[in-house]
Amino acid sequence: MHETKLRVRYSETDAQGIVNNANFLSYFEVGRVEWLRAAGLSYKELEAQGYGFVVVEVHAFYKRAARFDDELTLRTRLAELSRASFRFEYALLRGREVLATGSTRHGCVELASGRPSRLPLDLAARLREIEPRPEAGLGA
Amino acid sequence: MHETKLRVRYSETDAQGIVNNANFLSYFEVGRVEWLRAAGLSYKELEAQGYGFVVVEVHAFYKRAARFDDELTLRTRLAELSRASFRFEYALLRGREVLATGSTRHGCVELASGRPSRLPLDLAARLREIEPRPEAGLGA
Amino acid sequence: MHETKLRVRYSETDAQGIVNNANFLSYFEVGRVEWLRAAGLSYKELEAQGYGFVVVEVHAFYKRAARFDDELTLRTRLAELSRASFRFEYALLRGREVLATGSTRHGCVELASGRPSRLPLDLAARLREIEPRPEAGLGA
Amino acid sequence: MHETKLRVRYSETDAQGIVNNANFLSYFEVGRVEWLRAAGLSYKELEAQGYGFVVVEVHAFYKRAARFDDELTLRTRLAELSRASFRFEYALLRGREVLATGSTRHGCVELASGRPSRLPLDLAARLREIEPRPEAGLGA
Repeated sequence: MHETKLRVRYSETDAQGIVNNANFLSYFEVGRVEWLRAAGLSYKELEAQGYGFVVVEVHAFYKRAARFDDELTLRTRLAELSRASFRFEYALLRGREVLATGSTRHGCVELASGRPSRLPLDLAARLREIEPRPEAGLGA
Repeated sequence: MHETKLRVRYSETDAQGIVNNANFLSYFEVGRVEWLRAAGLSYKELEAQGYGFVVVEVHAFYKRAARFDDELTLRTRLAELSRASFRFEYALLRGREVLATGSTRHGCVELASGRPSRLPLDLAARLREIEPRPEAGLGA
Repeated sequence: MHETKLRVRYSETDAQGIVNNANFLSYFEVGRVEWLRAAGLSYKELEAQGYGFVVVEVHAFYKRAARFDDELTLRTRLAELSRASFRFEYALLRGREVLATGSTRHGCVELASGRPSRLPLDLAARLREIEPRPEAGLGA
Repeated sequence: MHETKLRVRYSETDAQGIVNNANFLSYFEVGRVEWLRAAGLSYKELEAQGYGFVVVEVHAFYKRAARFDDELTLRTRLAELSRASFRFEYALLRGREVLATGSTRHGCVELASGRPSRLPLDLAARLREIEPRPEAGLGA
């Protein structure tokens, strides 16, 4: 499990005075980039090698509103891993209060062709090394 | 079922050259606002009356990438309706090709207090009149 | 001068209940894409030919707030044109009321190298044919 | 002068592979919120007191592209201050390289009525105490 801190920006709120639902997906995106970095992996380098992740599925559950200037903690974990796809889970907290949970499923693509691809071997090896641990959770 | 046309904006794409996953949720939001309008209901007026919808749950399934300048058709239908919550379903198409499907569950809140509320009676009545029809689908 | 219609989306508002200042720049972007289309030019095709426009300068003047669900008219005109750069002017209206004006200056780049480039000859010729007309304005 | 660190998010890039021009305005917004915080002022509290800032004018000059995962430094300073309006200046850097500069002019409004207002006295006093210093600059 990895934790990232986020401060809610004014531009992320909407006229209801709360963070717009779509922006939680951008937060999740930050979460997996930082998860990868913490694992010694760089999404930017992966792209430089000609690979990218595509989002196949997204699920988000909104429990409480996030507001401008809130300091949030985003917990991210790799929950599933197979040869060609993987799934991240997220929990967004304000202090100990869970604001939202979610998950995203991803495939790997060759950026040049846009075609689905297996995960590059070294990436797959590194991911298997660290995750997923079925017993783990996000405490949310 | 209601159809809205959307033209992909440059600002909605990301460095993969495709519409960023989060923006599909903004499209869905447009879809339900237009669905309401087509049903003779105005989300703006609902807010003027002191009520709002909050997003409780979002699910999105990405099948094919949407790209800059694509002309998209967004189909929206009310799939479930109860006293205090309802669920919309969406299908995003480019021509006959389904790019994504999804659904969002909503609750109703009093905007002043932020507290959950039943749907205003006239809104609930109007919604029941037209939807949901279990036999209906989005053709996607 | 070209006119585009825009309906304010909920996701474009912020906690002040008005369209966030940054989103006016996305509106302007829509304006110039549609201006090009009306001139028989396609920004998408330009990119397919290996060229792109980069934003060099932006100026925006906010006079009145735009709100959720407002139907806006965006007027766009090419105000300056030289070998390697050009400038668009914009006026955003709600009915006859001017909400904002602005301008953007652009250069042309070769997308592969990212290097500044002259405008492709056929594009430059077409642009010179139709604009700019110094006597023209946006009525704003 | 105040410095804030920003890491470019994937969702902030567009199909040109660079940060979309509109997102620089969201960065500037973060800059002034953090400037205020560093000055012992909270934009959130200001809103709780019934006041808000509105953007009246924006100018941005884009010199070099910002890319996904770039670590940016945003410098913000209060450049002008009068009874009812003020102006911030910004410089966005990657290391020592200036990517963009800009400025925003703001007025103060009573949030309830939306009407222009003088700055609350304690805010005005605090701002005058620390800024602007005409001799200062952003080193950009």
